[in-house]
Amino acid sequence: MLFTPGPTAVPPEVREAMAEPQPNSAVQPEFAERYDRLCRNLQQIYGTDHDVIVPGGEGILGLEAAIASLVAPGDRVLCIANGLYGEGFADFVDSYDGEAELVSADYDAGYDLDAIEAALADAEEADDPFKLATLVHCETPTGTLNDLSPVLDLLEEYDVLSVVDAVSSLGGTPVPTDRIDVCLGASQKCFSAPPGLTTAAVSDRAWAVMEEREPTSLYTNLLPWRDVSEGFPYTHLDANVAALAEAVSRLREEGIENVHDRHERAAERCRQRGRELGLSLYPDESRASPTVTGFHMPGDAQDVRQRVEADHDIVLATSLGDLADDIIRVGHMGYNADVEKVDRVMDAIADVIA
Amino acid sequence: MLFTPGPTAVPPEVREAMAEPQPNSAVQPEFAERYDRLCRNLQQIYGTDHDVIVPGGEGILGLEAAIASLVAPGDRVLCIANGLYGEGFADFVDSYDGEAELVSADYDAGYDLDAIEAALADAEEADDPFKLATLVHCETPTGTLNDLSPVLDLLEEYDVLSVVDAVSSLGGTPVPTDRIDVCLGASQKCFSAPPGLTTAAVSDRAWAVMEEREPTSLYTNLLPWRDVSEGFPYTHLDANVAALAEAVSRLREEGIENVHDRHERAAERCRQRGRELGLSLYPDESRASPTVTGFHMPGDAQDVRQRVEADHDIVLATSLGDLADDIIRVGHMGYNADVEKVDRVMDAIADVIA
Repeated sequence: MLFTPGPTAVPPEVREAMAEPQPNSAVQPEFAERYDRLCRNLQQIYGTDHDVIVPGGEGILGLEAAIASLVAPGDRVLCIANGLYGEGFADFVDSYDGEAELVSADYDAGYDLDAIEAALADAEEADDPFKLATLVHCETPTGTLNDLSPVLDLLEEYDVLSVVDAVSSLGGTPVPTDRIDVCLGASQKCFSAPPGLTTAAVSDRAWAVMEEREPTSLYTNLLPWRDVSEGFPYTHLDANVAALAEAVSRLREEGIENVHDRHERAAERCRQRGRELGLSLYPDESRASPTVTGFHMPGDAQDVRQRVEADHDIVLATSLGDLADDIIRVGHMGYNADVEKVDRVMDAIADVIA
Repeated sequence: MLFTPGPTAVPPEVREAMAEPQPNSAVQPEFAERYDRLCRNLQQIYGTDHDVIVPGGEGILGLEAAIASLVAPGDRVLCIANGLYGEGFADFVDSYDGEAELVSADYDAGYDLDAIEAALADAEEADDPFKLATLVHCETPTGTLNDLSPVLDLLEEYDVLSVVDAVSSLGGTPVPTDRIDVCLGASQKCFSAPPGLTTAAVSDRAWAVMEEREPTSLYTNLLPWRDVSEGFPYTHLDANVAALAEAVSRLREEGIENVHDRHERAAERCRQRGRELGLSLYPDESRASPTVTGFHMPGDAQDVRQRVEADHDIVLATSLGDLADDIIRVGHMGYNADVEKVDRVMDAIADVIA
């Protein structure tokens, strides 16, 4: 049983949709209609009227493309971080010759609002404003869900565009997409479709900035996706689109509020079973994501992961980077946001650490 | 019946491979082993000992990434063209602030060897050499197969790296990969797998140039794929990799020489039936690709395409750009390189133009 925080296990109906013969995306209107319907349905999952687009590439493509599309050389970008993905945005900004200012908090702490406000105020005072700010909703490697609202309040106050990595929260918990200029998702997390598609909700304001910037890359560029009525930028990933369309239909049938509730119940069960086993959450419960739970097991995480797979055929993940051996992660997202499955996973962990 | 020159129809076995549950590409060695085996098998299809890599994105990603990985601002690039894709390389060079020199021939003519040699000689004389040259093996929009050898002779003489788009010839006809520094393919052409994967055979010389250049993009960068023993650059497209692995296994079972022969037979039947119908090839037979046949029908191509689909449920393509209404294209590549299927297609065209 695959229980990693992405790629998640994919339901049989979604896998079967992928095995159907596909229409040609360049020639047959049937494909364009499916794509349009998918984008409209994703607006419901995102809870927004912003345009939603679905380029063909793994989720990280969206993060890079948002920066490549918005950031001109010399543009100042405020990168707000309390984890690896938050920090990674600064590397993308560097790649496109932007000027990244990284405001980092500890990985088990919330965003540093005072430091963020100070950076925004300093920039205003120096008459050298930030063009945009980057944030991460769910820091998957630590299982942290960040409260975006106070930061979005500040960004609105200082009139700074927002780019949010919501890859592992979208479809699992509400995301304030209407307040976000570029809100990024991916097929293989809570949507429980195979990896290979980026999703992005883009505000009119963000489109206008891209139009002005005139990004020239084809593949790391969101702009050609604004209007695909005359054709897609390249041959679309037809089977992946069919799978995501089926996955999103399933979420809509269940009802997005019910889906969010299901994630809350699965997360709550996971944490409760952890408490019973004497495990510590990483971070504390107030920041724990409803889509992935990180348990703090300094120095033991990789051993526990291997034994759970060897003895119980359940595939978990550890963290990444410096914390790779310190956190074991249970990915109760999407198809795996299920109390019964969480119980099976926690039974296995209980057995291994007994 | 889908009979376009990519995406091609996908055999049921390949589609079913995509519907299997997949291992997690970050955590489970089973995935890395499948990927390694795929790369080794692709070396046989390419007919080379060069490294073969398979990044996650539609074929055009490979074209852009080859330029992004090799071309530093100011680098001179010779773009050799007799079609839309050949010309498109110059746009990618511009995107990365290289200096493109485009040597174009007519779309129904071969490469202009005299102009190519003059450009190379001028550059040498001015002590301002080209860093690389770009070529297209099969210009899919016109059904043209270019003879690469005389150009590769010149590039070797002048010590210029070669980047070749072999997207719609690889797996259908021999490609001189051992003489090419970056040879690009894609899953959805003669491999008859779904769109979503780029394939690239990369020479040691090309890797060395990339190492020196230090490309910074993540997604339009071939370099992180050189060594994936410590992990992939991002979550790989697991279902797409499973499908391509199955597709390539099928080619190996048939034997690549047999596969090439099958393409020759399908192409020959297509041309012969066209002759019987009084249709003209575009270009002439000496340059016609064994993977796709273009028939010249000035002003009628789109109408014929639509009627073949409406009356016979066979999906063909027309050309692109200025020739969009002038060429109808029969994509007898991969799974569709089959004399019997070609006969059905030509029967339908015969009926429509009768």
